[in-house]
Amino acid sequence: MVLDTSELEFVDGGICASGDFYAAGAHCGLRKNKEKPDLALVYSETLCNAAAVYTQNKVKGAPLLVTKANLADGKAQCIIVNSGNANTCNADGEEKAKKMCELAAKAVSVSPKDVIVASTGIIGQILPIEPIERTLPSLAKSLSPMGNSDAAAAILTTDTHKKEFAVSFNLGGKICTLGGMSKGSGMIHPNMATMLCFMTTNVNICTPLLQKALSDVTNDTFNMVSVDGDTSTNDMAVILASGNAQNNIITDESSKDYILFKKALFVIMTSLSKEIARDGEGATKLLECNVTGAATVKSAKIIAKSVITSNLFKSAMFGQDPNWGRILCAVGYAECDVNTAKVNVALSSSSGEVCVCKNGGGVDFNLNLAANILADDEITIDISLEDGIGSATAWGCDLTYDYVKINADYHT
Amino acid sequence: MVLDTSELEFVDGGICASGDFYAAGAHCGLRKNKEKPDLALVYSETLCNAAAVYTQNKVKGAPLLVTKANLADGKAQCIIVNSGNANTCNADGEEKAKKMCELAAKAVSVSPKDVIVASTGIIGQILPIEPIERTLPSLAKSLSPMGNSDAAAAILTTDTHKKEFAVSFNLGGKICTLGGMSKGSGMIHPNMATMLCFMTTNVNICTPLLQKALSDVTNDTFNMVSVDGDTSTNDMAVILASGNAQNNIITDESSKDYILFKKALFVIMTSLSKEIARDGEGATKLLECNVTGAATVKSAKIIAKSVITSNLFKSAMFGQDPNWGRILCAVGYAECDVNTAKVNVALSSSSGEVCVCKNGGGVDFNLNLAANILADDEITIDISLEDGIGSATAWGCDLTYDYVKINADYHT
Repeated sequence: MVLDTSELEFVDGGICASGDFYAAGAHCGLRKNKEKPDLALVYSETLCNAAAVYTQNKVKGAPLLVTKANLADGKAQCIIVNSGNANTCNADGEEKAKKMCELAAKAVSVSPKDVIVASTGIIGQILPIEPIERTLPSLAKSLSPMGNSDAAAAILTTDTHKKEFAVSFNLGGKICTLGGMSKGSGMIHPNMATMLCFMTTNVNICTPLLQKALSDVTNDTFNMVSVDGDTSTNDMAVILASGNAQNNIITDESSKDYILFKKALFVIMTSLSKEIARDGEGATKLLECNVTGAATVKSAKIIAKSVITSNLFKSAMFGQDPNWGRILCAVGYAECDVNTAKVNVALSSSSGEVCVCKNGGGVDFNLNLAANILADDEITIDISLEDGIGSATAWGCDLTYDYVKINADYHT
Repeated sequence: MVLDTSELEFVDGGICASGDFYAAGAHCGLRKNKEKPDLALVYSETLCNAAAVYTQNKVKGAPLLVTKANLADGKAQCIIVNSGNANTCNADGEEKAKKMCELAAKAVSVSPKDVIVASTGIIGQILPIEPIERTLPSLAKSLSPMGNSDAAAAILTTDTHKKEFAVSFNLGGKICTLGGMSKGSGMIHPNMATMLCFMTTNVNICTPLLQKALSDVTNDTFNMVSVDGDTSTNDMAVILASGNAQNNIITDESSKDYILFKKALFVIMTSLSKEIARDGEGATKLLECNVTGAATVKSAKIIAKSVITSNLFKSAMFGQDPNWGRILCAVGYAECDVNTAKVNVALSSSSGEVCVCKNGGGVDFNLNLAANILADDEITIDISLEDGIGSATAWGCDLTYDYVKINADYHT
């Protein structure tokens, strides 16, 4: 998929890019390794319009329940996040999540009801509040308009690198900025949101449209990523909009300002989605599966996700094996109608493109070229059908020894 | 799950156990390794009532299409199976599958329409017919009432051991026998049947009830197994009934003879299912997940299969980690209603039992006992809900380095 970035400019600064938001990260002690920061704080001087999407797992982390209640009025001003403990399936989970909001609120002098709280880490272990309580005052003091990278580092678990992007664009002569950070790695198969994504913007936009844009774009970005097929209990994506760009407030979903804002959101969320897939636990390759010609967009999504989630296909990609039969197999068991006699498959990368299957059957192809393509670390699988005009893209990664190692060793 | 084997006696002989069926296996040359047999033949002197179930993958192997046509009259007398090539997604697939039937029919002097054909191996490579044509005459000559193990070996791919079972039982004073063989290993997440299972019996039973028993029991056995979540294109389970036990023909599904026959079938298919799970690619452990107290049987099945299919849970079992949060997570994303606040989880093995989660939350448990249980090679996960009386059992295996190795190395 070629990302349309016209009218947008990538800029530095991640979640702080607009200049309206302050961020900080620190090691508070929830994680044993002192080198790994585990507490992040984000703050805006302005009360923001806010929207969020949450996991559809029926087991929901306590922080999600508290955040949802706090966002009932569509407003927020502060985000507190810890890594190292999911605060999920604990009897005192909501109490602790509320306490985190109170402590953060006190540290930055806002209402506890305007705090968004999130947690990521192991499920079912009591969250110790003392390290957070002890650290919050100094963390608040270290809030900085350049603290985006410290915050982006503090929300990671087994991720190997920070994930942050920002773009700027022009709405009616006003310079607007949208930036975000996320974490992914394992238990990644989001259904509604992904395992923690936080975005900020200075765009002036009403809460209902902010929510609509976030929900719509989530379906095409985070919900199209799979690392291991496991939908987490704590998935959450949040956006805060300060309005300080002073553009005319966006209240009409057919307006060109809304369309450009949504495009910026799509670019940021797609960029973060790809980083989550690329940095999946143990991954050595980013895989992008494009499905075109499906009967409906829904069918295209189901097929793309079926392929990107297949353990056998993912193992073949790790083994650099053009075993297209496994792709056809995953198309065939996808839960939608598909005319399997009209499936074409091509593999491509910066090394070139090779068609491996036409009309549901094998074709002779250049094995050397295929080997070169599969040796690359970004591989595209194009699947074209002749059932209609539905198309979709999904992202994933290969299945490697290290995925098993990380998850066999991530002990309780 | 405790298997009820009253009125049944396990006997030797696998697919030949009833004495009515002859079997043979040989290396014909589809596989390079001459040590590995790759062609199996099963034959009955009597024309049998026959029933089959097939994969629900929309990509279907050519042998399945030919078998389905041949079984339209509910009769069969011979089975020919090759390993090393799936004969799927090939333009000449059906032609080659029909040719296999003709060659087998000629070798044992039956009608080609009474031959069942199956293939397993790599998808999308043209099946060479010459090795089969060259080998069938000698294979037919080697047919023996003690050839069950040779046939059971010839249908394997990456399986590490043969899978065959038989039981005998008494219907109205007549000694009846039911035996079968199967292969599993990878691309195992059957939906309607499993990756090749062949059973024979001397029971006198009409074809409609034979089909009904097979279909019903498949839903509770093979369809409850997952090695890797990938539903194959070539799954097939078949049963031949010669009627030579001379019991009064079974035509009434409320009769006690039908109920005992179905019980025998359930025992054989459950035993084969567990062997398929235990011998999943790279597996070191057999995992059994029992769900009780679900709202419906369907919900119980969905939950049991969701847990047994979770990569994170499977990796934790490989790592011998009592990480029950991953079990709760998989219960939570199962596609059915469940009251997650009332989920209890216990782990057990021959070393004992430990409750790790009550009412959706963690409990203190004996870590040493848990470590001993998880070090065993057969582990049971009991999940009890308080939503109703639905129950189900699913089988799977752990996710290991070797699964990745086998599938990264299984080159086109």
